Amino acid sequence: MTDAPIQRLCVIGVGLIGGSLARALRAAGACNEVVGCGRDSQQLQKALALGVIDRAETDIARAVQGADVVVVAVPVGAMAQVLKGMASQLSPNTIVTDVGSTKGDVVRAAQIAFGNLPPTFVPGHPIAGTERSGVEASFAELFRQRKVILTPASTTHAWAVSRVTWMWEQAGAQVSEMDPQHHDEILAASSHLPHVLAYTLVHTLAGMQDKDEIFKYAAGGFRDFTRIASSDPQMWHDICLANRNALLTMLRRYSGELQQIAAALQHSDGSYLWSVFAQAKQARDEYTQTTQVSTELGVPSPCKGEGQDGGE
Amino acid sequence: MTDAPIQRLCVIGVGLIGGSLARALRAAGACNEVVGCGRDSQQLQKALALGVIDRAETDIARAVQGADVVVVAVPVGAMAQVLKGMASQLSPNTIVTDVGSTKGDVVRAAQIAFGNLPPTFVPGHPIAGTERSGVEASFAELFRQRKVILTPASTTHAWAVSRVTWMWEQAGAQVSEMDPQHHDEILAASSHLPHVLAYTLVHTLAGMQDKDEIFKYAAGGFRDFTRIASSDPQMWHDICLANRNALLTMLRRYSGELQQIAAALQHSDGSYLWSVFAQAKQARDEYTQTTQVSTELGVPSPCKGEGQDGGE
Repeated sequence: MTDAPIQRLCVIGVGLIGGSLARALRAAGACNEVVGCGRDSQQLQKALALGVIDRAETDIARAVQGADVVVVAVPVGAMAQVLKGMASQLSPNTIVTDVGSTKGDVVRAAQIAFGNLPPTFVPGHPIAGTERSGVEASFAELFRQRKVILTPASTTHAWAVSRVTWMWEQAGAQVSEMDPQHHDEILAASSHLPHVLAYTLVHTLAGMQDKDEIFKYAAGGFRDFTRIASSDPQMWHDICLANRNALLTMLRRYSGELQQIAAALQHSDGSYLWSVFAQAKQARDEYTQTTQVSTELGVPSPCKGEGQDGGE
Repeated sequence: MTDAPIQRLCVIGVGLIGGSLARALRAAGACNEVVGCGRDSQQLQKALALGVIDRAETDIARAVQGADVVVVAVPVGAMAQVLKGMASQLSPNTIVTDVGSTKGDVVRAAQIAFGNLPPTFVPGHPIAGTERSGVEASFAELFRQRKVILTPASTTHAWAVSRVTWMWEQAGAQVSEMDPQHHDEILAASSHLPHVLAYTLVHTLAGMQDKDEIFKYAAGGFRDFTRIASSDPQMWHDICLANRNALLTMLRRYSGELQQIAAALQHSDGSYLWSVFAQAKQARDEYTQTTQVSTELGVPSPCKGEGQDGGE
């Protein structure tokens, strides 16, 4: 499917994600002009100097004027305020999409900001990131072979969904659609729960009397397991609160399984332990095989740095 | 400190760890002859062909004869039987050491096998490994810049401890000493608990109705967090049972912290979440800075493969 380039793309929040999307679309010839908007004018000047944006605006209402596509790439906790800021200025033909890690709360924020959910609002979530942040960390290949989930409502214009799908495909991503609540349940399991578990482990160990020795003798297993505990606390605070119901459900399910492990240890029930470990290894090995292709093709590789997917 | 080379080294279990130690000591000129012992004669033939060992024995009693140092490099669950097998043949001058991931149970196994703890028995644990196994995966640099913990008793000969320390230093490792119970508590926290948590997460998700979608949309954070869930289930079954008391203590402490997180989510207590996440990030970042030098110097790097430190 070929589409005309986006005439004017407005990116609100020109950081790693927003900056990388602008770079990718420009590299693909998929947009002509990029307006960058943010609160920090120094960051915007940097984005201008790097050629990531063509024009800088600190006022949201002015930034979105005349844009055919607006991408909101701010932390989940700032979403409501940003959407409110553009509500009065938005033309009925302007597509708005976002990159938030949770979707139910973004839909609710949009309903409040706009009075109802605009048919041109297409909630989205690119499952990509690195441990670094800021426009200086952005690069055009960030979304190649990565997955993007869109969560349109039944009232969303099909042409708007199609345009946002095309946009992400131009950046190299694979796009699928999902109900926002289902998205939040899936991501609570695959992403939000692991982050909470890793944070909690490091917090538990850091509170122990022997913490210096514990960290001193920790090896590669610990390093990999806790890599995500180096992620931005504010971002994960926002995500956990935004998705607290789905996350609580997963936490309870996980805690229940952990209690069964503890009971098995208590009774030296080796066969239960073996069966859990063996089933987990099989599922993990199958996961690795399934994702191998996209891991090999995708950039960045899991070895590019610490704490990847800070906002996945 | 210079020492004469080991005249005859006996390695029982010529796999990744035993094979790598033999290679490292040979490369350093720290041993003259290596006798390899194992149940699988095909594996021993491979070790002979690779030049890792000079002589192969499937009988433990015969293998240890005339050795000045015996290294027991078998899974923790097989330790008791191996020690029993050599008990009648051991000369009072032969040093015996092991590489087990738990130490309290190895000390108990030795007490039972030998009637009491021989003053030449020096329990040890090299905190190193890769996801691969078998002699074909062994390499001389495995222990470079890695930590080895020895847990001698008050009755252990000082010269035996000194000799085992020297041996590991010849392989490039940093050696320290610890009480066996303390070792097991430290490793329960830094290694055994994370492995159980990772196995439990993958097992929990694999049991869900939406498992295909959950794994499909899992990204780098999940991949790193669950890498250790690809470790050998039998090895971790052995370790968990061998160290079940210390592991249970850690599991209870961790579950308690997880309950506090759940309570904070329940009450939308964002400041508690932020404080746990921020403290964890700080501790994790400090850990990374502290270990950066040894990570950079050490081999293999955390990126050499999946599931490193299978037996750490």
